[in-house]
Amino acid sequence: MSSINSSGEPAAVRVVGGWASPFVNRVVVALKLKGVVHEMLQETVGKKSELLLRSNPVHKKIPVLLHHGKPIAESLIIVEYIDEVWASNGAPAILPRDPHGRAVERFWAQYIDDKIPPGIRVLRGSVAQDKDKAAGEMSTALQHLEEAFVECSQGKQYFGGDNIGYLDIALGSFLGWIKAVEKIAGVELLNEAKVPNLAAWADRFCAHPAVVDVVPDADRLVEFTVQHAALLRAVNVPK
Amino acid sequence: MSSINSSGEPAAVRVVGGWASPFVNRVVVALKLKGVVHEMLQETVGKKSELLLRSNPVHKKIPVLLHHGKPIAESLIIVEYIDEVWASNGAPAILPRDPHGRAVERFWAQYIDDKIPPGIRVLRGSVAQDKDKAAGEMSTALQHLEEAFVECSQGKQYFGGDNIGYLDIALGSFLGWIKAVEKIAGVELLNEAKVPNLAAWADRFCAHPAVVDVVPDADRLVEFTVQHAALLRAVNVPK
Repeated sequence: MSSINSSGEPAAVRVVGGWASPFVNRVVVALKLKGVVHEMLQETVGKKSELLLRSNPVHKKIPVLLHHGKPIAESLIIVEYIDEVWASNGAPAILPRDPHGRAVERFWAQYIDDKIPPGIRVLRGSVAQDKDKAAGEMSTALQHLEEAFVECSQGKQYFGGDNIGYLDIALGSFLGWIKAVEKIAGVELLNEAKVPNLAAWADRFCAHPAVVDVVPDADRLVEFTVQHAALLRAVNVPK
Repeated sequence: MSSINSSGEPAAVRVVGGWASPFVNRVVVALKLKGVVHEMLQETVGKKSELLLRSNPVHKKIPVLLHHGKPIAESLIIVEYIDEVWASNGAPAILPRDPHGRAVERFWAQYIDDKIPPGIRVLRGSVAQDKDKAAGEMSTALQHLEEAFVECSQGKQYFGGDNIGYLDIALGSFLGWIKAVEKIAGVELLNEAKVPNLAAWADRFCAHPAVVDVVPDADRLVEFTVQHAALLRAVNVPK
């Protein structure tokens, strides 16, 4: 994505982020689905830029979307914002149109954020807690999400039906990290025998053109974890 | 609200809840703002009805909205659902129309749910943690929300402008409990000197016709806390 336009002014859409953060990845996937040209501003692990501190003074966390200079924070809120602002540019809607479908996807997205990141933090070794317990809780959560997939996809390819939607983005952003902690902690989470629909969906999601260059693969995240172990404990990335 | 219609069938809109839960109060205020006739199904503290367990099998928590029998869970998600379903019945919109305004209100609503309920739990005595620390954190959060009020209200009466909106409901639902824990723990939180705009807004909000019979007053909640202290520790109401 081009970072400077011909006038030398900042791009209309900028993302303050980092490539390894699943929360940042959500924003980038949503922008790509909508075909929105944007500038990525990569934060350095362990430091926080002046722009980040000024744009998200309450949480001081990535991602932040800057749209014509106005900051928006919190990844799922940014994804909804993107869906609402670029609602009529020809790209498919990210959230379902009917209120019940929207409520169901918001429910599961909140569930994902309650259950998945804490499990990843423990299994990655950045929080000193019982890893077997964390793996068990992650497996239970994925079992629930397997059922949610059957309910939401209605036999189609994605949670969102024929296209990647809100819940695909919410869960799919963690796939790299889920596979990375399987390697780091020696556990099986996205097991084909236990969650066959989710395992097949994960392969489809990661190969999608809007995702393939955004959600990092497990090996890259394992390497990132090793390199940044001390820093990650301190700065708690990903959240 | 009438609970049985002439045909003896369940009402089209039912709320599985409890009067002391701020999360339930949010749903009821939203329904009243939209003028939606509904049936309240009061859960008994410390028990969970078969209907609740069946309607919210993942979290097993109130509130649940049943709309023509279809369950929707999680209070803020229900409020958005109500706003979307009853969008054109003449009542004012609960969320702003413009995407940036919506994102700002969603950001602060999430902030409220991160900061306020944990503080209330500690100050009420249902979680054994440092009360001075909890009171300090609550005061910091309310200071942030004082600034958010100035930003969102633009000099008008409510976060939502001339009418009660999403953020009014999100924070206002806790006013009874905030005032109750001020009495229980002997602390000052909604202090006119510290948060003058929020203190004046709180009085206006609690006197609003859609709120006055819904959000319980502090004395009633203090009494509830004393009566149900042991049970509350066990069942963790409000969340």
